Amino acid sequence: MREHETGDSFAVRVAAAVRATGPLCAGIDPSGELLRDWGLGDDVAGLREFCHICVDAFAGTLGVIKPQVAFFERHGSAGMAELEQLIREAGQAGLIVIADAKRGDIDSTAAAYADAWLGSGSPLAADAVTVHPYLGLAALAPMIHLAGHNGKGVIVVTRSSNLEGRALQEALTAQGPSVEESLLAEIAAWNKAGTVPSGTVGAVIGATLPRSAFPLSQLGGVILAPGLGTQGARPADVADRFGDCSPGSILASSSRSLLANGPDPASLRKAAAALAHELSTLMG
Amino acid sequence: MREHETGDSFAVRVAAAVRATGPLCAGIDPSGELLRDWGLGDDVAGLREFCHICVDAFAGTLGVIKPQVAFFERHGSAGMAELEQLIREAGQAGLIVIADAKRGDIDSTAAAYADAWLGSGSPLAADAVTVHPYLGLAALAPMIHLAGHNGKGVIVVTRSSNLEGRALQEALTAQGPSVEESLLAEIAAWNKAGTVPSGTVGAVIGATLPRSAFPLSQLGGVILAPGLGTQGARPADVADRFGDCSPGSILASSSRSLLANGPDPASLRKAAAALAHELSTLMG
Repeated sequence: MREHETGDSFAVRVAAAVRATGPLCAGIDPSGELLRDWGLGDDVAGLREFCHICVDAFAGTLGVIKPQVAFFERHGSAGMAELEQLIREAGQAGLIVIADAKRGDIDSTAAAYADAWLGSGSPLAADAVTVHPYLGLAALAPMIHLAGHNGKGVIVVTRSSNLEGRALQEALTAQGPSVEESLLAEIAAWNKAGTVPSGTVGAVIGATLPRSAFPLSQLGGVILAPGLGTQGARPADVADRFGDCSPGSILASSSRSLLANGPDPASLRKAAAALAHELSTLMG
Repeated sequence: MREHETGDSFAVRVAAAVRATGPLCAGIDPSGELLRDWGLGDDVAGLREFCHICVDAFAGTLGVIKPQVAFFERHGSAGMAELEQLIREAGQAGLIVIADAKRGDIDSTAAAYADAWLGSGSPLAADAVTVHPYLGLAALAPMIHLAGHNGKGVIVVTRSSNLEGRALQEALTAQGPSVEESLLAEIAAWNKAGTVPSGTVGAVIGATLPRSAFPLSQLGGVILAPGLGTQGARPADVADRFGDCSPGSILASSSRSLLANGPDPASLRKAAAALAHELSTLMG
């Protein structure tokens, strides 16, 4: 059995962070292009410096960061070691870390991903991990159970911010609702059932598109809303689309447009604070 | 621009391997349970020994292996370093390596996953990688293009071997066909269009379930069929479900039930050869 690390569910911790600093999550996307823009090498040393700057800039200013795992995996195991260090240092600095890994598999493989991203003592363990539901949300039960046990979260991609996903996500299940609406209902059911703490399961819902019909106020978990900035969503879109959700449950995520204010930590910090303030004001 | 590593497409290389040794792919699944069953530590040293035994047993006996990335990621960056070594050693031993990573994202993030798993010079680069299509197959274009350029493959999960995926995968798109059939048609279109070599894009189709209506003989890519053994599919099921597909395009995958013959390499080799022979005979 793993140690229960905290008494609060993931959603409770996020809500406290949102109350303190606003509903903004900073995406940590050290792409080759951005490393070059910041005057850093497209290598492991560049990754490390990029992450140091981000922790310096965001700790104390924002509550939540979202490293995009692909940009670390791109450098192989040495890049993943930098991600481990980022997760550790960000946690020590008081930041909640969502590993944007979009993992997902079945049976013992799903349990292995749970161990990797949500297990106590795992070097990659974050506060939450994003997952792909193509194999069915129920197949991800090992991840949800371990997250619940450890006060962590599983955030399910449901309505992505890109247009290429519409046909699949809007397809109609035999029961009637669309794929994404069925998933949202399943997420709400997990958060109500009592087998894991309410707020263990969240959803990725792009801020770039109009909402589906599912009443998000009943989701019971964190909504991670990517797409702010480069992908086209404005703060007003976030307020418009998610204004009726539970206070503290929305995390709008900005990556490229926010990081374009680097590499100076003071400029990054100022831009993050201003965007978080704008979102807080708009969302009441 | 990256160097084009081979003149043959991924599907052509797989077909040659199937002709030589049969339509069996060995899953490399070093779960904690299996490491213990083999008398190895559930740690990085155990992973390394497990992989050495597998390469020793399968090289020359089978053409293709499929390491399940989750079981390496579970050990963090140090586990991923063992995966890099497995990919390198297996390649040197003449094995085709399919990284069962089930990755998938959009835009520059999809490009980063492409760099990681399909890029020339990347320490994790395999011959092919499995992907999740929840964000839409078109969003994975950066992975497909890089795979095609480098003579590698992208294998799309379409009809998974588990029951929890049925509702989503059988949901009906607005155009009429189900999610999985739409994906199969998109895969066939990629393999015909000429923008990447035919055979660059394949599909994961579980051997545990009856086939969908899509004519798989028109897919134009490799079909990876998991589920043989522990998950319930028998060799006769594979022959029955995929017998009309292009010769050499089917790779039935067995993990736990095959690996249960370890840790003795001779026993593993014998079991793999027998199963490959049985599949070859049944599939004509």
